[in-house]
Amino acid sequence: MAMTKPRQPIVIERVAPAVDDGRYPVKRVVGEPLVVSADIFKEGHDVLAAAVRYRARGGADWRVTPLLKRDGDRWVAELALNENTRYTYVLEAWTDRFGSWVRETERRVAGGQTDLRSELLEGRALIEEAAGAASGVDAERLRHAVGALDAAPDQEARLRLILDTGLRALVARAASRPDLTRHDREYEVVVDRPRARFAAWYECFPRSQGRVPARHGTFEDVIGRLPDIQAMGFDVLYLPPIHPIGRTHRKGRNNALAAGPGDPGSPWAIGGPEGGHDAVEPGLGTLDDFRRLVKAAGDHGMELALDLAIQCSPDHPWVREHPEWFHHRPDGSIKYAENPPKKYQDIYPLNFAGHAWGSLWDAWLRIVLFWVEQGVRTFRVDNPHTKPLDFWRWLIREVQDRHPDVIFLSEAFTRPSVMRALAKIGFSQSYTYFTWRNFKEELTEYLTELTQSDMVEYYRGNFFVNTPDILPEVLQRGGPPAFRLRAALGALLSSVWGVYSGFELCENAAVPGTEEYLDSEKYEIRVRDWNAPGHIKDLIARLNRIRRDNPALHEYRNLRFYEAASDHILFFGKATAARDNVILAAVNLDPFGAHEARLDLPLAKLGVAPDEAYELTELLSGTRRLCRGPQQTVALDPEHGPAVIWRLGRWRRREQDFDYFA
Amino acid sequence: MAMTKPRQPIVIERVAPAVDDGRYPVKRVVGEPLVVSADIFKEGHDVLAAAVRYRARGGADWRVTPLLKRDGDRWVAELALNENTRYTYVLEAWTDRFGSWVRETERRVAGGQTDLRSELLEGRALIEEAAGAASGVDAERLRHAVGALDAAPDQEARLRLILDTGLRALVARAASRPDLTRHDREYEVVVDRPRARFAAWYECFPRSQGRVPARHGTFEDVIGRLPDIQAMGFDVLYLPPIHPIGRTHRKGRNNALAAGPGDPGSPWAIGGPEGGHDAVEPGLGTLDDFRRLVKAAGDHGMELALDLAIQCSPDHPWVREHPEWFHHRPDGSIKYAENPPKKYQDIYPLNFAGHAWGSLWDAWLRIVLFWVEQGVRTFRVDNPHTKPLDFWRWLIREVQDRHPDVIFLSEAFTRPSVMRALAKIGFSQSYTYFTWRNFKEELTEYLTELTQSDMVEYYRGNFFVNTPDILPEVLQRGGPPAFRLRAALGALLSSVWGVYSGFELCENAAVPGTEEYLDSEKYEIRVRDWNAPGHIKDLIARLNRIRRDNPALHEYRNLRFYEAASDHILFFGKATAARDNVILAAVNLDPFGAHEARLDLPLAKLGVAPDEAYELTELLSGTRRLCRGPQQTVALDPEHGPAVIWRLGRWRRREQDFDYFA
Repeated sequence: MAMTKPRQPIVIERVAPAVDDGRYPVKRVVGEPLVVSADIFKEGHDVLAAAVRYRARGGADWRVTPLLKRDGDRWVAELALNENTRYTYVLEAWTDRFGSWVRETERRVAGGQTDLRSELLEGRALIEEAAGAASGVDAERLRHAVGALDAAPDQEARLRLILDTGLRALVARAASRPDLTRHDREYEVVVDRPRARFAAWYECFPRSQGRVPARHGTFEDVIGRLPDIQAMGFDVLYLPPIHPIGRTHRKGRNNALAAGPGDPGSPWAIGGPEGGHDAVEPGLGTLDDFRRLVKAAGDHGMELALDLAIQCSPDHPWVREHPEWFHHRPDGSIKYAENPPKKYQDIYPLNFAGHAWGSLWDAWLRIVLFWVEQGVRTFRVDNPHTKPLDFWRWLIREVQDRHPDVIFLSEAFTRPSVMRALAKIGFSQSYTYFTWRNFKEELTEYLTELTQSDMVEYYRGNFFVNTPDILPEVLQRGGPPAFRLRAALGALLSSVWGVYSGFELCENAAVPGTEEYLDSEKYEIRVRDWNAPGHIKDLIARLNRIRRDNPALHEYRNLRFYEAASDHILFFGKATAARDNVILAAVNLDPFGAHEARLDLPLAKLGVAPDEAYELTELLSGTRRLCRGPQQTVALDPEHGPAVIWRLGRWRRREQDFDYFA
Repeated sequence: MAMTKPRQPIVIERVAPAVDDGRYPVKRVVGEPLVVSADIFKEGHDVLAAAVRYRARGGADWRVTPLLKRDGDRWVAELALNENTRYTYVLEAWTDRFGSWVRETERRVAGGQTDLRSELLEGRALIEEAAGAASGVDAERLRHAVGALDAAPDQEARLRLILDTGLRALVARAASRPDLTRHDREYEVVVDRPRARFAAWYECFPRSQGRVPARHGTFEDVIGRLPDIQAMGFDVLYLPPIHPIGRTHRKGRNNALAAGPGDPGSPWAIGGPEGGHDAVEPGLGTLDDFRRLVKAAGDHGMELALDLAIQCSPDHPWVREHPEWFHHRPDGSIKYAENPPKKYQDIYPLNFAGHAWGSLWDAWLRIVLFWVEQGVRTFRVDNPHTKPLDFWRWLIREVQDRHPDVIFLSEAFTRPSVMRALAKIGFSQSYTYFTWRNFKEELTEYLTELTQSDMVEYYRGNFFVNTPDILPEVLQRGGPPAFRLRAALGALLSSVWGVYSGFELCENAAVPGTEEYLDSEKYEIRVRDWNAPGHIKDLIARLNRIRRDNPALHEYRNLRFYEAASDHILFFGKATAARDNVILAAVNLDPFGAHEARLDLPLAKLGVAPDEAYELTELLSGTRRLCRGPQQTVALDPEHGPAVIWRLGRWRRREQDFDYFA
């Protein structure tokens, strides 16, 4: 009568973590556990069993981790993901018939039922069935258990044998899995290498790294700068585009419409007679020189990140070779980039809506793979929000299927939904609004969303304190004290942060009324004295040292905000799961005035008893204090220290632990 | 190089409503709008268009309702669902190229760009393309528009023509849909007939409806009772099982293990020599008598609901005919129902885990369809939480595919996850914990969850004030005042409520220390004087009258709680979406003492200005008062009225509206 009776007898729901119900992968790094949980239940009172099956991309074998029942219908499993790859996992559940029988029998015994002959026969039958299904040692043991049952002198002895937990595990391994229900989604988790989550970025224009004013710097000059950058503690060195720069409509200094003689143009106007995105600007050196830089950076504990800007100067070879990849106007000319009324005459966007989108996608995959072959493993993607989301999803997947260690940073400053979508479809890290958040309430609200909402499963905020496009007002107005406090915030609030060079010199001259740098390196070569008076390299080095030394700061999602009795003082902390590394920090957000505040330390959450002694080591100064009780007072003067950064040490030994106590 | 490039250029996410991301249908009733919304966006700044495509089950044609952009990336559509059936709907979005062009051109005009020749050529090309794709009048109009453009004397005239909103709609209808993205889920909405949401249930044992003590009542006797039940305002008459009752292990009065001579047994011990679930207990009459009752009930404005209890007495014909549907013990006997240490020797459960589950499912579908053929359209399902969830999903779907007007009520009192799951998989209504919720805080919390969480999309709580299994403590202890206040709560808080007969007589004798009725009708025939002194039939009739007269009380999800300055007084309201029917009620929850409280009326939410006059009509007494301002005080004495129920009427006319004003 009825045609189909699809069986799905067990409900598996509210699976966590899951991004949009599994449409997008969650993200972890190698060694970070993935805790999977779900509500699992069926009708009635049977005992259930459940497991997560998972496998690495391309792997043939599924590994299995049992889900354990926690509270109510909630089941939990912790997976150890030790490969830098993408994993797939599915949840499944079934009825544990023998377990159900054990529970019911135990209830009967507890309820005083004396005649259990029939029940014992049922139990025996289940063991016999399992013995038939098992093989090897298990089968032997199960057959032995049946024999022992039959030989037992009385009901009590039989119960003792059959209710043994070892036997239950044995049966569970071999027994059939009635009601087996597999959840309808295959979930994914992208397991990145640790540097996707923990890194300090330094951005500089290679052409500005020379020592002779107005002379075009080279990769060789960058190599000369590596010790200084390494000394500040950075581990990712990010270079704006290194490709040949167009001549047509080249921009002049301070974004002038026409370039003067000798103006180098914007590195983002990519492509000239010397080549396009797979070529190197001759002024910087050769591809060989570049590869030497990659190696030298590695020798200094740093990796190189390249800029991926999907746009062409009018002189890019593709304009001639692939007119089908550009927008043509009715008069036959190619459309330059614009965001009316702004115009970018030196840049042609690519036409992703055209008929040739397929070959265009392929071309970009080739470009990325070309640089991967040169040793680049990190790409900072320029304006990804103006290219199709599904293009990025495809590109990142294609690259990471071949090279799972490649990291992509999304430079999208746009609507939150689009920024989130880019992270969901695969970007390993993302720029954030941190750069513009200065006040306690807005920092707390925004960073709580970033690190404690479901965004934490897919969005890793890379906290840049400045960029070539953004000299935030707080730095323009607040001077060195502002640079110091923003460095402390960036370095401590997120496990990934970044500075654009010049920050360490507290450079803050802006084009008036804008966030653009005056005499921006985007349009000219700038040669600096990297040890100019007033620099804050020591502070940056100290902050990066503190980050490296403290595992709590390697994590992203462990940020928590605590009470400080001042609107100007932000008090927050990070701790490892085991609470064996606990960092607490208070930062004065006001670059203009000293403030003090009483802080409430969340001792209970940090595992410190109310009357327990603990030690606070201030990591900027190295000073220590012995404390008891939750309240501490700090006074922070922006002219001196913008912050206190404490490592909390527990005093675990008490008189009872002393040898002669008692 | 790259093998597959799946296009999904537009993101469609956060679709609402959706139960578990569309794994289960949402519920509506005929005429109730379905408001569908989603976040829809893509990269860049193109203008998008989006729509909901939907069709009734079995229908060939998709209907289309456009989604309109509301706030940010949120799009909304309202579907009118006028058939009692199941609908499928999908969301899709695409790029509106001409709309994008219009927006960009408008920005250029606003930005002062004077030479728009190239832009106008692009716009013209888009219209021409649409003209080629259009047919009939649209094609003609579009061609005419191109001609008019070409003939226009200057750029200004061309702009006027091309930026016309009528032309934009015309192009949108005909244009291709680049980037067309269909959301990956097909959602479902079950549109029930209105009585699934708005009904007052009356439950009675037909064998107790006679007038001669100890004589077995008949369907004919029930027919005799219909005018009285109708006068109380009920519209669903629910009968416990009407099938032959088993002899073996028949229970006696007050659940005695052995029946005395003449004891009729529990109607839930279904099946005897006279037949099983498709037979009628001969003491009640014949199947023809039953059909006459169905018709007579209809003539009295009521429909009949039957009990569906999936279990058998040891004398059920299936025990003999289908031993494969039962649990057999190792000694060959059949397992009776038990929940250790409780035993139900008069009942065999069915074995849904056995090999013959497929034919068992079919048998139940046949049983339900048999009663549907006898004119039954509502089933109250006994203990559904002890049968497989996927069985119910299948059964309800099979029945409703044939008879979409069939309503299923889930009688599951168990863990919340299972109660919710039963509602998700298809039950039209569900019992709730309302029966045990007596205090202000717990009522507010629980009913807020029921009516304002996502449960509202699938779970319709039928608020029974008592059942044959539950004589709640508040009724046992609180006497008639408790009956009155519980009736007011049940009738007003939910659009579906129910009473079990005897409630109107304030019967409250319990087996001591339990919620079981003393001398329960489950085990004996009881003949009552339905007009015994102290009955509250007038109050019940009045409550049901108020329900019928006020559309706000026909809705389920519009319950809102408001401020009352007393822990004993619950103040709440319901309003239609248009606020043309507004009911406010205050109920004294304490059956033992009078209480008074100041109430804060949410005038702004109800569309009444702070200084506006309004009228409150108290619907139990019919008294009226003229008011201004949000505060009202009520004094409620449980001995007299347990509640005030106001209909709020706005005074809309003011002096300005008077003819001679000015």
